[in-house]
Amino acid sequence: MSEYPSLSVPPADEFFRSKWVEPPAGVEFLDPSRLPEGFRAGGVACGLKGGGGTDLGAVICDSEEVSSSILLTSNAAAAAPIRVCRDNLEQSRIKAVIVNSGNANAATGEQGIADALAMRDSLASATGLAPDTVAVAETGVIGVPMDMDAVLSGINGLADSLSTDGAVEFSEAIMTTDKWPKRVSLTVDGVTLSAQAKGAGMIEPGFATMLCFVQTDAVVTDPEALLRPAVESSFGRITVDGQMSTNDTVLLQASGASGLELPGGLLEAVLLQLALEIVSDGEGASRVGRAKVMGAADQEEAELVARKIANSPLVKTALLGRDPNWGRIAQAAGQALAGQDIGELGPDVIDAADIAEGGREAELTLSLDRGQASAHVYFSDLTHEYIVINAEYTT
Amino acid sequence: MSEYPSLSVPPADEFFRSKWVEPPAGVEFLDPSRLPEGFRAGGVACGLKGGGGTDLGAVICDSEEVSSSILLTSNAAAAAPIRVCRDNLEQSRIKAVIVNSGNANAATGEQGIADALAMRDSLASATGLAPDTVAVAETGVIGVPMDMDAVLSGINGLADSLSTDGAVEFSEAIMTTDKWPKRVSLTVDGVTLSAQAKGAGMIEPGFATMLCFVQTDAVVTDPEALLRPAVESSFGRITVDGQMSTNDTVLLQASGASGLELPGGLLEAVLLQLALEIVSDGEGASRVGRAKVMGAADQEEAELVARKIANSPLVKTALLGRDPNWGRIAQAAGQALAGQDIGELGPDVIDAADIAEGGREAELTLSLDRGQASAHVYFSDLTHEYIVINAEYTT
Repeated sequence: MSEYPSLSVPPADEFFRSKWVEPPAGVEFLDPSRLPEGFRAGGVACGLKGGGGTDLGAVICDSEEVSSSILLTSNAAAAAPIRVCRDNLEQSRIKAVIVNSGNANAATGEQGIADALAMRDSLASATGLAPDTVAVAETGVIGVPMDMDAVLSGINGLADSLSTDGAVEFSEAIMTTDKWPKRVSLTVDGVTLSAQAKGAGMIEPGFATMLCFVQTDAVVTDPEALLRPAVESSFGRITVDGQMSTNDTVLLQASGASGLELPGGLLEAVLLQLALEIVSDGEGASRVGRAKVMGAADQEEAELVARKIANSPLVKTALLGRDPNWGRIAQAAGQALAGQDIGELGPDVIDAADIAEGGREAELTLSLDRGQASAHVYFSDLTHEYIVINAEYTT
Repeated sequence: MSEYPSLSVPPADEFFRSKWVEPPAGVEFLDPSRLPEGFRAGGVACGLKGGGGTDLGAVICDSEEVSSSILLTSNAAAAAPIRVCRDNLEQSRIKAVIVNSGNANAATGEQGIADALAMRDSLASATGLAPDTVAVAETGVIGVPMDMDAVLSGINGLADSLSTDGAVEFSEAIMTTDKWPKRVSLTVDGVTLSAQAKGAGMIEPGFATMLCFVQTDAVVTDPEALLRPAVESSFGRITVDGQMSTNDTVLLQASGASGLELPGGLLEAVLLQLALEIVSDGEGASRVGRAKVMGAADQEEAELVARKIANSPLVKTALLGRDPNWGRIAQAAGQALAGQDIGELGPDVIDAADIAEGGREAELTLSLDRGQASAHVYFSDLTHEYIVINAEYTT
């Protein structure tokens, strides 16, 4: 596997390119447009984005046996589509999802809720589905009313164009300022799985939203029990700038058409690679770090310390500058455990050599002497481009 | 009062230049070299810094009636001088403090503790004080053994040079990469007070340390009860990059020579202005923001939300870019209260106009509808210079 040779979409057969991802045995990559049996997808341009880019996509599962799970941001000021999915959706029987990438429909008040419901109802009507089996996801500008004429006429055209090889079109229709689409289609042990994600880039800065959609023909009897830990070890372990979005959504749909179970570890590996693609394509990112903390008193402490290191602007700029500055790691760890005394942390317990010597992916480790727990968090470096993106474009 | 007309030391009589500081009534500014009765101070170059800059300073109180309070970082990986002050100091009877600004003496192990104790003992011996009445503060490079020959010979010269008008020399000897010294000497209602601080700049990046020393001839019977709330509302309310140092120290010493009490509000105003000088001179800072949260359920919640806003890189880059992006404030507040539901936060409850329209100091306010508590946090913007300082110099 090549380690991010270029900042662009990898060839389909180099999807698992991170050194931190163990590719599942026996994986065969498919044409990335291909969806598992029972699914159709597509993407169209409805005019929200301007410039003619595709900005409206949908995935639909035609199987009555569909099982699903959806995980939504816990941000206390969540956007309209999150509220609609939280309150008005049969979450374990989601047949379809409608996504727009031109308007986050966030901070849009009661009208925003009505608009998200109208999107849902429009796709349901055009595809003959019950409204409460259709999820809505949105990303883009915030605080701007939706252009519903454009969206509703786009949905009609989109519903007619959904196809079994529409995964590439869908993956591109959900992008905002991602530099490359994040997607994969593969088969292993008779089961097919495809997934599409978008990361922390915005039409206009404001909210950095991650969305991810996974389709499989496996039989998944308890989709939430499968999805939740896989998300916790992937999207739950990444940080670009420590900021939680109002719109984050991850959806898993299983058609059951293969009659087989999902091979162990497959979902985890796919989601982790997609998560790392998002970090790697984070705003201004040039390198990806993994902050690994060992010997913590318990799991909560290990995660707390790893997150504090990963979100430290001093560590993030050190990663950019290839400066194996263990003192900054010691400082962040000491801050995470403020009020306790963990002694001075020196180069005997901190390995930051990879910051200087590593490639695009660099590992830094801290060995505490407090117990047996460990945790890690993936993060991007902090660069001039991050500041250009976030300070020099005015919303 | 002019509002930071230039990034340099203000004229002595424009010390209270922040719009957020209420200058105490009747203040008369003194020559900034002047110390209150009972104090001597000074600064010398001992060679730690290279280039011949002064890097060793001391303040001594000659009164037997001295009362004092010292507040030390709660960082769990605290540096040697913090440990010495924590464990080996008569904290309410501190006669003197010895400070070096060339070496933080952090992550230096047992030898670092021995060196900090040797500095303390050396000043005590040269001035005839009991060792446990001498505090030690250090800032500068980390993980580097102390050059104790230079320090100890410097202390001998320093002890001979301490004078009643040595405050300017002291204020300059404690600087690291501060662009201007932070100091004031003033009198009000018969009481004299002087103070010196240094901020978040380092000889080499690694630890950003703030130090502050305050001297007064007032009678202070319970110095900790006076100092702690004043620090909480000043140095406890600022953030440059959210990183807590291993070396932070604030010391108040009162000689009692005036026989008068400290006028109410004076210490708070002086410390707040010094804190704002530190933010204003933070690494790469070009503007200072105040994130004010009102209508929170309780004090803890108000502070949590204000801190999350103040530390958001999206808000900090918006301050730089003069982008009154209320969506970023809503996102940060929503993240601070993740797992709860506070509804969507829109421009009706967020005032960010000052980001675009304000001067060097900009106020942003968020009005929640959850209770009566409020809090604010001061912060610097996130600039290209921050990244240059922290990524492009290698330690």
